[in-house]
Amino acid sequence: METYVALPLPKLPFISPKLDRNKLAFPSSPSKQRSSQSTRLHCQKMYVPGFGEASPEAKGAKNLHNFFNYIAVRIVTAQLQSYNPEAYNELTEFLERHSLNDGDKFCADLMRESSRHKGLAMRILEVRSAYCKHDFEWDNLKRLAVKMVDESNTRLMRDYVLETSHVESEK
Amino acid sequence: METYVALPLPKLPFISPKLDRNKLAFPSSPSKQRSSQSTRLHCQKMYVPGFGEASPEAKGAKNLHNFFNYIAVRIVTAQLQSYNPEAYNELTEFLERHSLNDGDKFCADLMRESSRHKGLAMRILEVRSAYCKHDFEWDNLKRLAVKMVDESNTRLMRDYVLETSHVESEK
Repeated sequence: METYVALPLPKLPFISPKLDRNKLAFPSSPSKQRSSQSTRLHCQKMYVPGFGEASPEAKGAKNLHNFFNYIAVRIVTAQLQSYNPEAYNELTEFLERHSLNDGDKFCADLMRESSRHKGLAMRILEVRSAYCKHDFEWDNLKRLAVKMVDESNTRLMRDYVLETSHVESEK
Repeated sequence: METYVALPLPKLPFISPKLDRNKLAFPSSPSKQRSSQSTRLHCQKMYVPGFGEASPEAKGAKNLHNFFNYIAVRIVTAQLQSYNPEAYNELTEFLERHSLNDGDKFCADLMRESSRHKGLAMRILEVRSAYCKHDFEWDNLKRLAVKMVDESNTRLMRDYVLETSHVESEK
């Protein structure tokens, strides 16, 4: 990695960050072009401090993990409601006493409540695994999140401009 | 969609949910096979209650949106620290007084604090957009989340079994 630190970036005129990231070849060693590109691609990322050995992706995954557990509980509850009122009542009663914020702790506690609760816990584990692999629309998540950032940015700037012009026109 | 509700699923022997989801053809209309498959694929998803008109993906995107804002603030703060101590102090002082839980509210407030703060807010908007499009590793997020669910499931079951066998061996 250190080989590429001294790349003469300042000499190259008008490199937009986007083009730079993906298309800049490594002029002195065409045979290593591919590997140097990928190394550079990695180096060009913005430095995100404060995640220690973890990564933003790992933190996001941890949040999603608890979210999938929450969804699995919702799915199982809805399924039980229609055909097993007794188990449904047991699960909802357990839900009132235990937080879903830590999904793994919830399942661990549910397993140890009774043998019937253990069956429910096993089902939640199964559902959350199947859900994140097959049902959750990952592409859609990305599309929606990127759209949300762009739309929020536009809205924030528009609101600010409207507010500022309003104040000035009243003066 | 209603055409496929009456599919004679119970007559088909030993369809595992996974095979069923992806490979089951619609026997009576081979010409519509493709569209019926995709419709069935949609219908085969587990019902997730409680999201109203929104979807789990939209809720996940909303969380990630705030997360990207948090990351953008960390990135900008780290950048300022090295070359603009004055702006760094202004931003950290503002951070002490304002929560990052609602990213959009944070940026809206930052914009209205002063003209210098407005510049910082614009930069945070720009960074969060660039980060979610180019830097954040979406594939890695999926890989890590799926891995986390599987590993947690294994760990929860193993811990339970170990704990139970321990209790029984002591009896």
